[in-house]
Amino acid sequence: MKTTRLEAFSDGVLAIIITIMVLELKVPHAVELAALKPVLPVLLSYVLSFIYVGIYWNNHHHLFQVTEQVSGGILWANLHLLFWLSLFPFTTAWMGENHLAAIPTAIYGFVLVMAAIAYYVLERAIIAKQGRESLLALAVGKDWKAKISLVLYLAAIPLAFVSSWIASALYLFAALLWLIPDPRIEKALKKRQ
Amino acid sequence: MKTTRLEAFSDGVLAIIITIMVLELKVPHAVELAALKPVLPVLLSYVLSFIYVGIYWNNHHHLFQVTEQVSGGILWANLHLLFWLSLFPFTTAWMGENHLAAIPTAIYGFVLVMAAIAYYVLERAIIAKQGRESLLALAVGKDWKAKISLVLYLAAIPLAFVSSWIASALYLFAALLWLIPDPRIEKALKKRQ
Amino acid sequence: MKTTRLEAFSDGVLAIIITIMVLELKVPHAVELAALKPVLPVLLSYVLSFIYVGIYWNNHHHLFQVTEQVSGGILWANLHLLFWLSLFPFTTAWMGENHLAAIPTAIYGFVLVMAAIAYYVLERAIIAKQGRESLLALAVGKDWKAKISLVLYLAAIPLAFVSSWIASALYLFAALLWLIPDPRIEKALKKRQ
Amino acid sequence: MKTTRLEAFSDGVLAIIITIMVLELKVPHAVELAALKPVLPVLLSYVLSFIYVGIYWNNHHHLFQVTEQVSGGILWANLHLLFWLSLFPFTTAWMGENHLAAIPTAIYGFVLVMAAIAYYVLERAIIAKQGRESLLALAVGKDWKAKISLVLYLAAIPLAFVSSWIASALYLFAALLWLIPDPRIEKALKKRQ
Repeated sequence: MKTTRLEAFSDGVLAIIITIMVLELKVPHAVELAALKPVLPVLLSYVLSFIYVGIYWNNHHHLFQVTEQVSGGILWANLHLLFWLSLFPFTTAWMGENHLAAIPTAIYGFVLVMAAIAYYVLERAIIAKQGRESLLALAVGKDWKAKISLVLYLAAIPLAFVSSWIASALYLFAALLWLIPDPRIEKALKKRQ
Repeated sequence: MKTTRLEAFSDGVLAIIITIMVLELKVPHAVELAALKPVLPVLLSYVLSFIYVGIYWNNHHHLFQVTEQVSGGILWANLHLLFWLSLFPFTTAWMGENHLAAIPTAIYGFVLVMAAIAYYVLERAIIAKQGRESLLALAVGKDWKAKISLVLYLAAIPLAFVSSWIASALYLFAALLWLIPDPRIEKALKKRQ
Repeated sequence: MKTTRLEAFSDGVLAIIITIMVLELKVPHAVELAALKPVLPVLLSYVLSFIYVGIYWNNHHHLFQVTEQVSGGILWANLHLLFWLSLFPFTTAWMGENHLAAIPTAIYGFVLVMAAIAYYVLERAIIAKQGRESLLALAVGKDWKAKISLVLYLAAIPLAFVSSWIASALYLFAALLWLIPDPRIEKALKKRQ
Repeated sequence: MKTTRLEAFSDGVLAIIITIMVLELKVPHAVELAALKPVLPVLLSYVLSFIYVGIYWNNHHHLFQVTEQVSGGILWANLHLLFWLSLFPFTTAWMGENHLAAIPTAIYGFVLVMAAIAYYVLERAIIAKQGRESLLALAVGKDWKAKISLVLYLAAIPLAFVSSWIASALYLFAALLWLIPDPRIEKALKKRQ
């Protein structure tokens, strides 16, 4: 089974997730600039989640570039990842509309953790299919970014009850980590050519 | 006529169906954990429907891998299937928001029955076009999974009035049946190579 | 310029149009079967519009199979068609929620007329680019279906004020006309091979 | 890295943006023609934004036709553009629902400015990757359209406080500028062949 249709379907789901979050930006009835004030925290959490969905799309893109064949297990590992990502609009809106209250901010982190685990499971499912000597297995290597992110999310969840600003800063910091382009897979691809 | 555009359109529709269901998870106004309690049954019915749309996407994917040409009849059989699947967000929300009340749970089963029939009609339309000796006709064979699922749905509809938990358990059990990867078409494909 | 991306974008827009109409099926709060009664006219108008979007997708698919190159004019003629089709969810919901009241039913017809004109303009733009001796020009021929549909819509608009049931019957009849597979383009394609 | 998946994802996001704006056309409860009156300014701002998203899709399409390889920087420049475009439904609805009040009209222009800058950044990122002697660098040339549009948006923002009709007329005029097909890239492509 080729990866094209799996990629097309995932692209569709990610495109919808990233776009419907904007529906939570409720259009204000007033027309003063002050009317945008309650929209602002929702906008900020939208920006954070937009970056996260962008990162996942980006990594997903990289992952399937070094994947050639899809098994039933990979299909379901992929759907499992999409499931947790599909909860982003909900947790984003809950956190944003309540000005980063402790529990919504912790739940936001919980969904980040689950998505990170789901991504890890997907990566392992692909490596299991391709063999430990495959391009992907070599490229992923020790995957320190994924590990640090997970530690940051896990730290942010209890910290949300101390200060939700610290938790949000950790989410943002983990996102910025990923914005640094990942040279591992690109390098491995170049070597192959 | 090639199958590419039909697949792309179906992928789009399925991606939207699977994602807009999440819009029914109404963002709570309160910020305690207890505020998630009314969301929980909606989330559970969302998980069930997510699995079902995933199964249909998966099977659709397999089906069109062994299909080479599309006729007008196949196009409309496909749209007919998408129509019933597009009712999933409605029945999922109705069932979830009412804590699995009898009638919404039965209607949920009714839409599952109609989608199963539509899938069967689509399969037959493709076989009719390709001939009874085709790869698909051989691969599908007696199709016991489809038959058992249909029996389970039909049993669940009246049972929803006895206990909607029994009905839901049957829906879940039928879904899990499909999660077991279907070796028939994959086998047939391997033989051809 | 190739047609692939134009087709992919149109598929996306049509997939979203056909699916977001279902969001107008408001989930009832009650759990009796009677609670579905107000949903029924919305469901019926949804079915009608689902068929129409299906027809447009189908015809669009045929149209671009015999189109090889896209000009700026064709791009905008295509967007113009998508614009009118994007109003379907609005007119469908307005007609459905008001049990086929005269004015919403007439407006529904007006949007059908505009979409039909936009389709005609798109067809002409493609023929203008390809030349009057092209495959499409020969295939389309006198295009009686498009002409009859237009007459039916134009008749239905004033008739909506007499009886909106007559108007709806005309919309449905015009839709059924298109369900009959169109052998013209398929024939022309076969001849070429 | 190939451009196909980036184009598919962008097509998906643009298709959703252009379509969900229609959800802001709130279905009226009354059935007289007068009930459409409050919908009219929302419809007009929808038309304007529909044209803008169409222009961006069109230009995006042209841009990636002369792009062969995608780097991490281009991916993020593209997501940055999609972010600003994703705010169109919000600003469109706010402007439309308030009959072009001054501040929503100015904010609409602000998002147009940010989208124009994001497009410019994306263009530069691609040229930086391809070299100043590349096809795109030559085709884009002095890019007077982009410069005039930016001037028009920047003029419209303060003018919205004088008369929001002047501001809207400038937005419309800038859009019409882009409707004139851009012969630069098409010419450059022809020369290459």
